[in-house]
Amino acid sequence: MSVTNQATAILLAECQDQPGIVAKVTDFLARYNGNIVDLEQHVDTEDKHFFMRVEWQLENFNVERDAIKNMFSEQVGSILGMNWRIAFSDIKPKVAIFVSQHGHCLFDILSRHQSGEWYADIPLIISNHTTYKTLAENSGIPFYHLPINAGNKADQERIQLELLAKNQIDTVVLARYMQILSGDFINHYPNQVINIHHSFLPAFPGAKPYHSAHERGVKIIGATSHYVTSELDAGPIIEQDIVRIKHNDNVEDLKRKGQDNEKIVLSRAIRHHLQHEVLVYKNRCIVFD
Amino acid sequence: MSVTNQATAILLAECQDQPGIVAKVTDFLARYNGNIVDLEQHVDTEDKHFFMRVEWQLENFNVERDAIKNMFSEQVGSILGMNWRIAFSDIKPKVAIFVSQHGHCLFDILSRHQSGEWYADIPLIISNHTTYKTLAENSGIPFYHLPINAGNKADQERIQLELLAKNQIDTVVLARYMQILSGDFINHYPNQVINIHHSFLPAFPGAKPYHSAHERGVKIIGATSHYVTSELDAGPIIEQDIVRIKHNDNVEDLKRKGQDNEKIVLSRAIRHHLQHEVLVYKNRCIVFD
Amino acid sequence: MSVTNQATAILLAECQDQPGIVAKVTDFLARYNGNIVDLEQHVDTEDKHFFMRVEWQLENFNVERDAIKNMFSEQVGSILGMNWRIAFSDIKPKVAIFVSQHGHCLFDILSRHQSGEWYADIPLIISNHTTYKTLAENSGIPFYHLPINAGNKADQERIQLELLAKNQIDTVVLARYMQILSGDFINHYPNQVINIHHSFLPAFPGAKPYHSAHERGVKIIGATSHYVTSELDAGPIIEQDIVRIKHNDNVEDLKRKGQDNEKIVLSRAIRHHLQHEVLVYKNRCIVFD
Amino acid sequence: MSVTNQATAILLAECQDQPGIVAKVTDFLARYNGNIVDLEQHVDTEDKHFFMRVEWQLENFNVERDAIKNMFSEQVGSILGMNWRIAFSDIKPKVAIFVSQHGHCLFDILSRHQSGEWYADIPLIISNHTTYKTLAENSGIPFYHLPINAGNKADQERIQLELLAKNQIDTVVLARYMQILSGDFINHYPNQVINIHHSFLPAFPGAKPYHSAHERGVKIIGATSHYVTSELDAGPIIEQDIVRIKHNDNVEDLKRKGQDNEKIVLSRAIRHHLQHEVLVYKNRCIVFD
Repeated sequence: MSVTNQATAILLAECQDQPGIVAKVTDFLARYNGNIVDLEQHVDTEDKHFFMRVEWQLENFNVERDAIKNMFSEQVGSILGMNWRIAFSDIKPKVAIFVSQHGHCLFDILSRHQSGEWYADIPLIISNHTTYKTLAENSGIPFYHLPINAGNKADQERIQLELLAKNQIDTVVLARYMQILSGDFINHYPNQVINIHHSFLPAFPGAKPYHSAHERGVKIIGATSHYVTSELDAGPIIEQDIVRIKHNDNVEDLKRKGQDNEKIVLSRAIRHHLQHEVLVYKNRCIVFD
Repeated sequence: MSVTNQATAILLAECQDQPGIVAKVTDFLARYNGNIVDLEQHVDTEDKHFFMRVEWQLENFNVERDAIKNMFSEQVGSILGMNWRIAFSDIKPKVAIFVSQHGHCLFDILSRHQSGEWYADIPLIISNHTTYKTLAENSGIPFYHLPINAGNKADQERIQLELLAKNQIDTVVLARYMQILSGDFINHYPNQVINIHHSFLPAFPGAKPYHSAHERGVKIIGATSHYVTSELDAGPIIEQDIVRIKHNDNVEDLKRKGQDNEKIVLSRAIRHHLQHEVLVYKNRCIVFD
Repeated sequence: MSVTNQATAILLAECQDQPGIVAKVTDFLARYNGNIVDLEQHVDTEDKHFFMRVEWQLENFNVERDAIKNMFSEQVGSILGMNWRIAFSDIKPKVAIFVSQHGHCLFDILSRHQSGEWYADIPLIISNHTTYKTLAENSGIPFYHLPINAGNKADQERIQLELLAKNQIDTVVLARYMQILSGDFINHYPNQVINIHHSFLPAFPGAKPYHSAHERGVKIIGATSHYVTSELDAGPIIEQDIVRIKHNDNVEDLKRKGQDNEKIVLSRAIRHHLQHEVLVYKNRCIVFD
Repeated sequence: MSVTNQATAILLAECQDQPGIVAKVTDFLARYNGNIVDLEQHVDTEDKHFFMRVEWQLENFNVERDAIKNMFSEQVGSILGMNWRIAFSDIKPKVAIFVSQHGHCLFDILSRHQSGEWYADIPLIISNHTTYKTLAENSGIPFYHLPINAGNKADQERIQLELLAKNQIDTVVLARYMQILSGDFINHYPNQVINIHHSFLPAFPGAKPYHSAHERGVKIIGATSHYVTSELDAGPIIEQDIVRIKHNDNVEDLKRKGQDNEKIVLSRAIRHHLQHEVLVYKNRCIVFD
């Protein structure tokens, strides 16, 4: 779905299924003259669980923005026992990019940022190398070099967290950042740290997936963008895609073809996240696209 | 979305956009205790047009099945100036298959029919050739051989229409039927005649698309399933897909690779149609999948 | 590549790389007036290993068919230390199909067999169930019901092997045959038993891959056709493909969408095998397509 | 196929088919101790036409580089009546980029250039707008602003051609350059001007293909990279790919999704071209990939 020019509110919600949920939500919106521009809803009939995303125009909606969450909670959310959140389309999320030495994802992100494809701010780029310092600076984005070694990881993470806090960062994108974040770091940003892994997870987790793919002789290679959790490469998957390879491709070919796929998959995942289309339930992402 | 075991009603609707449409529909359903299992809705913000599909359980719904359409019309549809239709998931559509001499789509359809993948009846197969007479009979489906030549087309179409009427056919599937149906025939089944064309329309309409694709040197070939209208290969598109070809593929390779694609595309289109997921608006199909 | 009408010989070969290999092979063919219709060759530059497939017309080739292998061995193969085999395009491979209770792959195979898409004979179908007895018989193919239980597996495999031997079977296709073959059985048909597994291997090996895929929340499901080896789901991969799934698909939807993919992937793998396009090296398939 | 570190020569050739062509070519190479690292060849059996690409190491090849073309012509090419060309992998092609106001392809190209993915020089960027002046300069590439209006096109093309000549440009990439080049310009660079068109040609040629795609209601949008000829959007196709769209995507969504596809398709085409993998025959590209 696309960004409309007018400000909208977006509700993401899930709860146990029961009759009348949609009506209760849409009644609430109609009562205050909210015009729905997009609604998607479904029931997992095995789990008997209900999932919903609804987006409505704020113009003419007769509730003050500050009061919406409380009123929704009282009149709908609490009554139905929902897990829910509400976001506003005209509030720019602040995104920090972490990168190491592979720049294809960073380039792709900066290209989209510069063209205005995403409604988001990128207040800083953090890297354990200096490779992309000039690129960042040419893009007008502050660049922080925080090298990691065996002994300094906890200290550097503390600095990273301070930088993120100071810049009021909402979301961290690991654009091929080749360091494993601590559980403590991740707990600061639950379902807000987006990683790109260069395989079709759960196949080939961990290091050197293209080498493993070549050795196994697969005919297709993949990329997976997921929220980072404390278990390596096991967080909820936001987006995946694949690219076919050929019988005479070597590991270098796989890397090259894979990188095109990685950057597209990561950017799609970021967009879903920024558009408030992703709902996490039981370590799975429901992506209302 | 999947077939649930319980009977449901499905509303497909479109109208000019205005605030409160979803609420009015879902209120109507909630008023009579209808439990929504699937709702998808969006607004074409350029056209300011509203599209919706909603499916709810009939069990516990406090309106007699025969009265639903009238009540919906009075309480919602007419008031909002909607174009709408309501279908019931437990009523088996009756589908006639037309085929000529390429059997890959017919085989695929019969395989799905036999495995119970679709909730539909196939009361008859009509062909202008006898090639698949035995196949039809082995499947227990009556087969009618109605050869077409320069002089008898109108007469044969009259017989076809009688057979369809007699068998209370809802939908006609042209499974590589190589005759052009008359406007009169098509008018009997508006948005109910499904064709498969062996190209990525609008590229390569008409005869011999694989020859044209080879000559143009495309890198990808397609297949398109669409509702038949009086303009050849120009009806609303239900489903399309493609397959990559190689630099050393000749026309025969294209045909072979294309046929795999054709049968899958046609079967997906048939399923969308049978599941009441397709809404036609301005010669375009909105497919709520 | 496509089947030509004229009889051809096909050489598949691999050896350590060294200068002049292609020249030695093509000289041999030119010496006896062999017209090459297709040659593909590459070097794995990391492994320094050479791979080749060459196909030439037998018409006007000045070596008796019976003498070709000996002459090639003496003049080329032995000298270069090659692993090689030569096949003839006009010798019909004999293929046995094993199936259990899912018929989508079997239907697809029979459809292709009946349309003459493959140059192969199917002398028998073996099943541990009777589900597809009628289908087999309608296709004119002898059907053998060999039920498997905890106690009789070895005995039934002995009967299976006798049937295969009696029918001079070259290749066994496991078209969703839900029994694990013994190592002894597999050893009778090295790189000649083709399986279809309903996941993107190496992800989700073993039983119930669609359940696992649903639980892991992947965005794409796959199918893998491979030669069967003694290690479960770990044999050399011939072909793979994937299909995207949606956030509201349940396990039944995955099965349905996956089955379309399975049958296409299996049939492509069978074709590669029948066309002598597959060379196995280090548990990987080089597929010269 | 991948770039090897060692210098290679690449022959691309086509001629009427006849027995012994491959042998004559490979004999020539073996005679002077050329080690073939990649050979692909096939015959169009309908056209009875022969196509070949062969790549061999220059190290240990006993012909001086300057003499190779003459010797090949005398000993092979002329005798067989071949159309052929020979390129060397260690000679960097010089590529000029033309761009207008959409930057996604330019960004992608610069990203690959900067990461060293391609073995090529980019001595200049030409644009009829100043939008990407800073981007070019940050990349260290001279930028020339040559605005086009109704009256100055011929003059500006003359300046463009002078700039290309002065920089010894081999290949011109139109990275969403929204001006039609004159026949005279194109004749200076036959099969050396690469365009990206934002549709699946031959569908939707000309202006505003995403609008046309939306109006036609296609389910898939494409992008096509082709050599520019004097007939608009009708030159030989190097690469195409597609992306699925959704029923609720508007024209802006199509543009956004399409742009991801455009940049990948264009970059693949550029790579094929730079690797000397493309042979044009009868307005079709044979791409030996």
